[in-house]
Amino acid sequence: MTLEAIRYRSGSLQILNQLLLPHQTVYEDIRSVQDAYEAIKSMKVRGAPAIAIVGCLSLAVELRAGAGGDDPVTFIRESLCHLTSARPTAVNMGRAARELMEFAENESMEKNSEQLRESVISWIEDMLERDVNDNKKIGNYGAQHILSGVPRDSVTILTHCNTGSLATAGYGTALGVVRSLHALGRLKRVYCTETRPYNQGSRLTAYEAVAEGIPATLITDSMAALTMREMDITAVVVGADRVVANGDTANKVGTYQLAIAAKHHGIPFYVAAPSTSCDLSLESGRDIIIEVRPPEELTSINGVPIAAPGVEVWNPAFDVTPHQLITGGIITELGVFLPSELQAALTGRLTAL
Amino acid sequence: MTLEAIRYRSGSLQILNQLLLPHQTVYEDIRSVQDAYEAIKSMKVRGAPAIAIVGCLSLAVELRAGAGGDDPVTFIRESLCHLTSARPTAVNMGRAARELMEFAENESMEKNSEQLRESVISWIEDMLERDVNDNKKIGNYGAQHILSGVPRDSVTILTHCNTGSLATAGYGTALGVVRSLHALGRLKRVYCTETRPYNQGSRLTAYEAVAEGIPATLITDSMAALTMREMDITAVVVGADRVVANGDTANKVGTYQLAIAAKHHGIPFYVAAPSTSCDLSLESGRDIIIEVRPPEELTSINGVPIAAPGVEVWNPAFDVTPHQLITGGIITELGVFLPSELQAALTGRLTAL
Repeated sequence: MTLEAIRYRSGSLQILNQLLLPHQTVYEDIRSVQDAYEAIKSMKVRGAPAIAIVGCLSLAVELRAGAGGDDPVTFIRESLCHLTSARPTAVNMGRAARELMEFAENESMEKNSEQLRESVISWIEDMLERDVNDNKKIGNYGAQHILSGVPRDSVTILTHCNTGSLATAGYGTALGVVRSLHALGRLKRVYCTETRPYNQGSRLTAYEAVAEGIPATLITDSMAALTMREMDITAVVVGADRVVANGDTANKVGTYQLAIAAKHHGIPFYVAAPSTSCDLSLESGRDIIIEVRPPEELTSINGVPIAAPGVEVWNPAFDVTPHQLITGGIITELGVFLPSELQAALTGRLTAL
Repeated sequence: MTLEAIRYRSGSLQILNQLLLPHQTVYEDIRSVQDAYEAIKSMKVRGAPAIAIVGCLSLAVELRAGAGGDDPVTFIRESLCHLTSARPTAVNMGRAARELMEFAENESMEKNSEQLRESVISWIEDMLERDVNDNKKIGNYGAQHILSGVPRDSVTILTHCNTGSLATAGYGTALGVVRSLHALGRLKRVYCTETRPYNQGSRLTAYEAVAEGIPATLITDSMAALTMREMDITAVVVGADRVVANGDTANKVGTYQLAIAAKHHGIPFYVAAPSTSCDLSLESGRDIIIEVRPPEELTSINGVPIAAPGVEVWNPAFDVTPHQLITGGIITELGVFLPSELQAALTGRLTAL
């Protein structure tokens, strides 16, 4: 089976509530833009691509029901603005909002309200389809690239955080590469870091792997280097929150440390991300601001304290991996590129942020 | 104040129950060898040096009350055998048992039962005092070595796991170095990894730091490399479960990864350990067997599940850091040595295991 995190058919949207995972599998109806806003804000849905998709699909659901009346453009603009504000650091929602708004404004010059609604719904449905297809391309490009470098029958991958169906429109980015290898019968095993402090690895990636029968082993973040030395890891593959022009990559905290350990062991290190996660407007990772999150993410689990009271905490949510450490390449839906090739490969195909 | 994990005066022993930390500070009476056996087995006391001290002190308490009657040697032998079996992988208890047994047998040739009891009690009390003094020497040697390499007024240290008063007879090894720096007024801050999966850093090291007013910041294990890059770390200092002849060091899992990251950032990496933790009978770290512990340590906290049910887990308790990565040196009570100098420095002073 394939895990469905987003269930959409014309006029109807459901999401898997990730706050209840891995203990309960509950789908919730998203009937309005406001429902989506709340689901994004409360992290029932997370992962930059998934946030953008759910946000836009909620708009499609309202438009299908006739929302916006005689002035759908205003309704669309206000809805997108509201959705973008739910988690302002998520790049993909902002980008989708700008592109969709530009499309809607152009369409509104030629079409009546009903036609406009149909056009916008089609655009959004295309976006969902394109995102899943892009992820499948990422999965295939990545799998082929990894396999081309090894004589072995099967490969062992190490990954970080959750970059699967639960973080995207479906299939996943880094975990999409793992899925493709598994589908080809070439995956021996994937090692998943638990990904402290929010435990996306142990809660979400492990959940996806168990659900789909992908052979997976959970380790703590501290065991990654030992795993590289002892478990014959073929490649490390991670996702990205943002890839900038020189290939420097912001991703879930811990990624930088994995890249250093991979280099030490001579293991290729790959970043898997759709071109929509690439931001050519920033030259290097130095320009990326590190988001610091609340101490409670480290000091308690499910509201129960686990650390000594009174200790100070530093909780950066992500780190930046310099392009020199991305030795395998950056896997996009357009192909696999070295960091130094990325800008040229994407120029002209991407709207800069 | 100085945190007391072991309270001993002639005929009386109490230990701080570490299972209840950091939320409750409860001292428990240890009235017998059996009490100590159970406290060690259940991990109310942990850390290889602390296990040996508590085990031997419990024997002293019983001997003070006249245990063993006319044949104290047999009582001592049986007690030490029982204590060693509580956690057989702890090197220090086994070494202390062998040395103490040899001493008791020699003494028994010349002394009556009462005199023998007194001699053995003195030997054990000396051991307690020697262990604390050795740790203070480690602290001072380490602090001076670290300070000698830096022009700055104050230094920032990164440490792993718990190697403080709670793991030793008192003061601590790696955390002893931190204590010495703090006492000298030269410690700017110590960064403590939470040390998954058993959280000795967030539960125990953070507890000691808060109790003694040492400026400390808790991070996840995955943030160590980022902390090295962003927080001007002067040195990484860790403890050791076992240091072998070539300097390869077994320690809490995650140590190897820290050493790789330290090397990448050009930060000196130190191991702090008493000479009793050095095992010259093994030539290299390849001879050390990695202990694998139960999956539940990763998949639940305080009995509450935190991971996706059904996922496989690999849970090695420690890893081996190759001597090449121990760039700062090995800090012992005899001085600070490069791994290549260790064997010569210790030969003749150490009984090989």
